[in-house]
Amino acid sequence: MADSAMTVRYAVVVTIGVFLLKSCSGEETDIKLDKKAQLLHRLDSLNLLLYTFLLILTVLTIWTFKHRRLRFLHETGLAVIYGLIVGAIIRYGFTNSSTIVHMPVVPEPDGSHYNQSVPPDTLWLRFPESKGDGTTKNKTFAYSFRGEIYKRDNEIDLKATFDPEIFFNIILPPIIFHAGYSLKRKYFFRNLGAILTYALIGTTISSFVIGALMYTFIQLIPHLASSFTFLDTLYFGALISPTDPLTIISIFNDLHVDVNLYALVFGESVLNDAVAIVLSGSIQNYAERYQSGSGGFETWAFFQALGDFIRIFSLSLFIGATMGCVTALLTKFTRVRDFPLLESALFVLMSYSTFLIAEASDLTGVVAVLFCGICQAHYTYNNLSVDSRQRTKQLFELLNFLAENFIFSYIGVSMFTFPKHHFDPGFIFAGFFCALLGRAVNVYPLSFLLNLGRNPKIPSNYQHMLFCAGLRGAMSFALAIRNTVSDARQAMLTTTSLIVILTVILQGGATTQFLSWFNIPVGVDEEVEVLSYNGVRSSAGDGGFGDPESRRERSPTYDSMQGGSLSMGGSTSKTNEKALLARIWGNFDTHYMKPLLTHSRPTLLDTLPVCCGPLARILTTTQQMTQDNVARRVDSDSDLCLEDRDTDRRRTSIQPVSYHQPDLNYTNNPCYSHNGSAPSNSEEPYVVLNFTQK
Amino acid sequence: MADSAMTVRYAVVVTIGVFLLKSCSGEETDIKLDKKAQLLHRLDSLNLLLYTFLLILTVLTIWTFKHRRLRFLHETGLAVIYGLIVGAIIRYGFTNSSTIVHMPVVPEPDGSHYNQSVPPDTLWLRFPESKGDGTTKNKTFAYSFRGEIYKRDNEIDLKATFDPEIFFNIILPPIIFHAGYSLKRKYFFRNLGAILTYALIGTTISSFVIGALMYTFIQLIPHLASSFTFLDTLYFGALISPTDPLTIISIFNDLHVDVNLYALVFGESVLNDAVAIVLSGSIQNYAERYQSGSGGFETWAFFQALGDFIRIFSLSLFIGATMGCVTALLTKFTRVRDFPLLESALFVLMSYSTFLIAEASDLTGVVAVLFCGICQAHYTYNNLSVDSRQRTKQLFELLNFLAENFIFSYIGVSMFTFPKHHFDPGFIFAGFFCALLGRAVNVYPLSFLLNLGRNPKIPSNYQHMLFCAGLRGAMSFALAIRNTVSDARQAMLTTTSLIVILTVILQGGATTQFLSWFNIPVGVDEEVEVLSYNGVRSSAGDGGFGDPESRRERSPTYDSMQGGSLSMGGSTSKTNEKALLARIWGNFDTHYMKPLLTHSRPTLLDTLPVCCGPLARILTTTQQMTQDNVARRVDSDSDLCLEDRDTDRRRTSIQPVSYHQPDLNYTNNPCYSHNGSAPSNSEEPYVVLNFTQK
Repeated sequence: MADSAMTVRYAVVVTIGVFLLKSCSGEETDIKLDKKAQLLHRLDSLNLLLYTFLLILTVLTIWTFKHRRLRFLHETGLAVIYGLIVGAIIRYGFTNSSTIVHMPVVPEPDGSHYNQSVPPDTLWLRFPESKGDGTTKNKTFAYSFRGEIYKRDNEIDLKATFDPEIFFNIILPPIIFHAGYSLKRKYFFRNLGAILTYALIGTTISSFVIGALMYTFIQLIPHLASSFTFLDTLYFGALISPTDPLTIISIFNDLHVDVNLYALVFGESVLNDAVAIVLSGSIQNYAERYQSGSGGFETWAFFQALGDFIRIFSLSLFIGATMGCVTALLTKFTRVRDFPLLESALFVLMSYSTFLIAEASDLTGVVAVLFCGICQAHYTYNNLSVDSRQRTKQLFELLNFLAENFIFSYIGVSMFTFPKHHFDPGFIFAGFFCALLGRAVNVYPLSFLLNLGRNPKIPSNYQHMLFCAGLRGAMSFALAIRNTVSDARQAMLTTTSLIVILTVILQGGATTQFLSWFNIPVGVDEEVEVLSYNGVRSSAGDGGFGDPESRRERSPTYDSMQGGSLSMGGSTSKTNEKALLARIWGNFDTHYMKPLLTHSRPTLLDTLPVCCGPLARILTTTQQMTQDNVARRVDSDSDLCLEDRDTDRRRTSIQPVSYHQPDLNYTNNPCYSHNGSAPSNSEEPYVVLNFTQK
Repeated sequence: MADSAMTVRYAVVVTIGVFLLKSCSGEETDIKLDKKAQLLHRLDSLNLLLYTFLLILTVLTIWTFKHRRLRFLHETGLAVIYGLIVGAIIRYGFTNSSTIVHMPVVPEPDGSHYNQSVPPDTLWLRFPESKGDGTTKNKTFAYSFRGEIYKRDNEIDLKATFDPEIFFNIILPPIIFHAGYSLKRKYFFRNLGAILTYALIGTTISSFVIGALMYTFIQLIPHLASSFTFLDTLYFGALISPTDPLTIISIFNDLHVDVNLYALVFGESVLNDAVAIVLSGSIQNYAERYQSGSGGFETWAFFQALGDFIRIFSLSLFIGATMGCVTALLTKFTRVRDFPLLESALFVLMSYSTFLIAEASDLTGVVAVLFCGICQAHYTYNNLSVDSRQRTKQLFELLNFLAENFIFSYIGVSMFTFPKHHFDPGFIFAGFFCALLGRAVNVYPLSFLLNLGRNPKIPSNYQHMLFCAGLRGAMSFALAIRNTVSDARQAMLTTTSLIVILTVILQGGATTQFLSWFNIPVGVDEEVEVLSYNGVRSSAGDGGFGDPESRRERSPTYDSMQGGSLSMGGSTSKTNEKALLARIWGNFDTHYMKPLLTHSRPTLLDTLPVCCGPLARILTTTQQMTQDNVARRVDSDSDLCLEDRDTDRRRTSIQPVSYHQPDLNYTNNPCYSHNGSAPSNSEEPYVVLNFTQK
C-alpha cells in the first residue's frame, strides 16, 4: 500500500534546521485546491444555513399565527411561501457570477478501449502541473459522474439544491415512521376496510385514470405528444395520486374533528404513500422489461409488473413487521430498559435499519418503515421504559416536524433554483385538471361502493371533505425529483411542484372553511365519541357492554373485534366476514403475538397447548407472570391508542384549548368565532348521530 | 428555460391509441443509467446499513457489559474494535470485483482555452449514444471533481467511506454542542483557571513540542525527511494534541469520581478541541500566506497567524455566545413556550445555525457551537418549558451517543477501507512517542506552575490521572481525515487513527485500574462534596455560610464568586485577582445578563440606574415581576448545574447504583469488588481532605 502510494508522491526537499520555518509545505496546486475546497465548504454551509433560517422563520411565524389564532395559513403552506420568496431572490437577485470552471474533454486517443453504451462512472484526467522550477509534472485527477448537461447553470442555483437521494434516505424515513408510530390504531383498525379500499384500490384507479386522461390530453398538443409515452403519463398518475396528510391532520388535531374522519384521512394518506411508491416502482420496472422486449403491449410484462407490485409491497411489509417484532423481542428479553439511553438508541437504530434493509434488497424502504412504525407502537412501545417511550415519541415528533418543514421549504426554493424544471403550460393545466379528477374518481365511486356494504355509511359531507383533503405533498415531490433525466420527467417535476404548492397553500388554507361548509362536527372529544358509539352499539342489541372501563377489563379483544368496519347492528354478510377476519386476527394477536412480544397477559403458558409448555415457559418473562391486573389494564389500554393520555397532553400542548371539557363546541372556541357560519354546528350531537341523520 | 431544454430533448414518437402500451419510454442509455443509479443507491443503503448494524451490535454489547458490570472495555473501545473487525472483513473477505468503470480523458483538442493552474471543477464529456435505428447522437455528461488518483481502488472500499466533510458538518456539531450543554458549570467555573491554562497554554505548548520533536525524528529517517516540512509536523502536533473525554468521562460518571477532577478532565477536553481546531486552521493559513511570500521564516506571517488564532477564536466565541443570547431573548419575550414542539425546534435550529454561521464566515463552527451550548444551558434553558428542557436534553444526549459511536466505528472500519492510508512504521513510532510526551509536557509543568498560585493544590495523583486521561479521539481523527492530499498528510492520518484506536482501547480500558493505582477517590456524592468543601471554607474564616441552602438564598452570586480557582482562605495576590475578575463577571451576570435574558430576579428594574427605567420596564416580563421566591431559588439552582436532579436521574438510569446513598464506597460497589486493590480507598474522606492531605 505504501509502495504504490510512493509512486505518486510529490516531494519537496527541505533540509534546513529544526525550528527554522522554511520553504514550502505542499505545492501551489495543492494549496489552491485547499482554498477551493474551503470555498466549496463555505458555500455548503451557506446553503444549509439558508434552509435553517427558512425553518427558523417558519417556526417563528407559525408561533405568531398560533398565538394570534390565525388559521388561514398552515405551517407547511408558510414554509412553501417563504421558500418561494427566497428561491426567487436567489434566482433573480444575484448576478450570474459563476465560479464553476468546466473543461470539455474527449476520450484519450490512444489506449482508450472503452466500448460500453453507458457513460463511464469516473473520468481520469491527466493534468499538467507547473512546479516552482519551471518544469511540469502530470497528476491524475478523478471526476465522478453527475448527470446530463442541458444548459449552463448558475452556481448558486446548483448550490441551493440537494441530491434527490437525500429526500429518500434522510428526510422521508422519519416522516413515514412517525406516521406509523403515532397512528391511532384503535380508529385506524375500526375503519380499516374503508382505508384499505381508498388507499389500495383508490390510488390504483386514480393513477390509471390520471395516466389515461393525461395521455389523451397530450395527444391534443402536438409538441408534447412526441415526448410522452403512456408509461410516462401513467408514472405521473402514480406519483401525483398519493395525498399528504400533514396540513389537514394538524388542523384536524387543533379543532378535534371527529376521530373517524380523522382516521379515514390520516390512514388513507399514510397507506397511499406506500401504494404510490410501489406502484411507480412497478411502472418503472415494467418500462425496463418492456424495453428489452419486442414492442407492443406485453401481457407477460404487465403481469410481471403486477407481480412486482404485490411482491414488493408484501415483502416490504414483511420486513417492516419482522424488524418491529425483533425489536419487541430484544426489548422484552433483555433488560436493556435499565439503560434508557441504550434502549432509545437501539430503538432508533433498529427502525432506521429496517428502512435500509428494505432499500438494500431492492424493496421499498418507505413501506417497510411504515409497518415497522406500526409494530413498534403496537408491541415494542409496551416494553420500553417510561424514559424511552417519551424520548422516542418526542424525538420522532421533532424529526418529523423538521423534516416536513424542510421538504416544503425546499419545494418552494427549488421551484426557482432547481436547474431541471420545464414549464409547459399545457401539461401543467392538464395536470391540475387530472389531479382533481383523479381524486374525485378515488373518493366518490369507492364511497358509494363502500356504503353499499357498511351500515354507518360515510355521509356525503365526509366524502366532500375526503375529496378536499386531497393535498399533494412530500411523497409526490420526492418521486418527481428523483428522476429528471428526460424532458417529460422535467415537465412532470414542474407540474408536481406547482400542484403541491397550490394545493398546500389553497386547500390547506381553506380547510377550516371546508369543515364549516360541509358541517363537519368539530370539537369532538375522543372519549365522548367512544361512549356514544358504544351506546348505539349496545342499544342495537350487541351485548350489555355499557361501561367502557369494565368492558375493556372483561375482554381485551373488544376493540380488535370491531376492526374492519363501523358495523352497527345491521349485519350484512360482508360486514360479518370482515368482522370475522378482524376477530381472528384480534384473537391471534391477543393470544399469541402480544404474549410473545410484550409483557402482556394472558401469557403463552395460558394460551399455548399443554404440549408446548417448556417452550412457553422460555418465552414468558417473570415480569409477565408476576404483574398484577392493574398493570395489565394499563398495558392493554395503551395498546389501543398509543396512550391516549400522552396524545392528549401533546394535543393540548400544541393547542391550548381545554380538550376534555365535554361542552366544548364551536361557539366556545375562540378561534372559530370569526368564521361566521360555524355556530350552526354547535347544537349537533356527536359523530354517530351525525352519521345516521343522513 | 423551456426552449433551451428543448434543444437536448430526445423524442421517441409514439402515436398509437390511448390504452395500448406501446414503444418505448426513454432510450436505452437512460434506462441503463437508471439501473446504474439504482445499483449505486443500493450500495449506499448497504453502506449505511453496515454502520447501523455496527452501532446496534455495539449497543447490545455495551448493554451486556453494563449488565454484567464488566468495565474493562468501554463502548467507544467496543465500537472501534467492531469497526476494525468489519473493516478487515470488507478488505480481505471480498474479491476485487470492481464495477466502477473509468475512462482516461484529455482536454478537447480544439476550443480548449483552459489555462488555469488548478484542475477544473467539472468536465464535460461528449458521449456518443447509439439509437435504435443505428444512428448515434452525442450527449454531454457532466463529471465533478473528486480528488487525485493514486491507485485503483476497490469499489466496496470506496463505498464504506464517507466524505470527511460529513464529520465536520453532521457528526461533530451535536457532540460538541452536547459537551457545552451538559457541562457542569458550577465546577467548571470553580476550576476555570486551571482548565484554561491546560487547554489554551497546554495545548499550544503540546502542539509545538510535538511538532518540533517529530521534525527532529524525521530528519533521522531519510525517506521521510523529504516529504515533511516543519509546518506539516506542527500541524500534526496541533491535531494530535486535543484529548477526547468520552471514555474517561463516562467511567467517571459511573464511578462518581470526585467532581473537581471530573471538571478538570472534562473542561480541558472540551476546550482543547476548540483550541486545536483553531490552531490547526491558523497553521494552514500561515502555510498559505507563507507560500505566496518570499521564503524563509516570515515574522509577519507568523504574527498574522497568531492574529488569526486570536481573531478566529474570539469571533467564533462571540458568534456562539450571541446566538445563545438571541435564543434566550426569543424564548423569553415570545410565548413560544406554549408550544413546546415549536420551542424545541427553534432551539435546535438556532443552535445548528450557530455552527453554520461560523463556518460560512470562515470561522470555526466547533468553537461557536460549544459556547452557544454553554449559553443555551446558562440562559435559554431557564426560559424553556418543562417539556422542551427534557426534550432538548434527551435529544442531544441521544444524538451525542449515536454520533460518538458512529465516529469510533468509522475510525475502525476506515483503518482498512479508507484508500488514503500510508503506513510508515517510523512515523507511527515517532507519533506515539511524541503524543505521550506532548501530554506530559502539557500536564506536569503547568500543574507545577498552577500549584504555585493556587492553594488547594492539584495533587500529584490527580496530575497522573490527567496524564492518563489523555486519550485521543474524534477531533484528532476528523482533523486528520479532512485533508489527505499529500503523502505526509496520509501518514499523519494513519498515525492518528492508530493513536486514537490504541489510546481508546488501552487507556480507556485501564481507566478503572488507573483510578485505583492513583488512589483517586470514587463514589463521591456531589452534595457531600459541596458540604465538606463548604465546611473547610467556613473553617478557614471565610464567613459563616454553613448551610448551603441558606447560603444560596442569601447570595445568588455565591458560586460565581468562587469562579476561577479553588481559593481556600490562603489568598495570594494572583488568587485574589482571579477571584476579582470572576466576581466582576458574576455580578454583571447576575445583575444584567440574567435579568435581561431569563426570567430571573433581581429584575433590571432593580439593577439598572433609575434613568433607564422605561428601557428596564420593556425588558422585564410580567412573569419576572410576579414570580415568587421559590421559583427564583429553583431557577438559580438549576442555573448552577443544569439541574442536578435531572443529571442525577440520568446518571442513575445509566448506572443503577444508588447515587445519593451517602455511605457508598468502593467495597459496597459490586463492580469494584473484583478489582482487588480498591478497598484501600474506602476509608478515605471526601475530596477536600484528599486535596489537603498531600
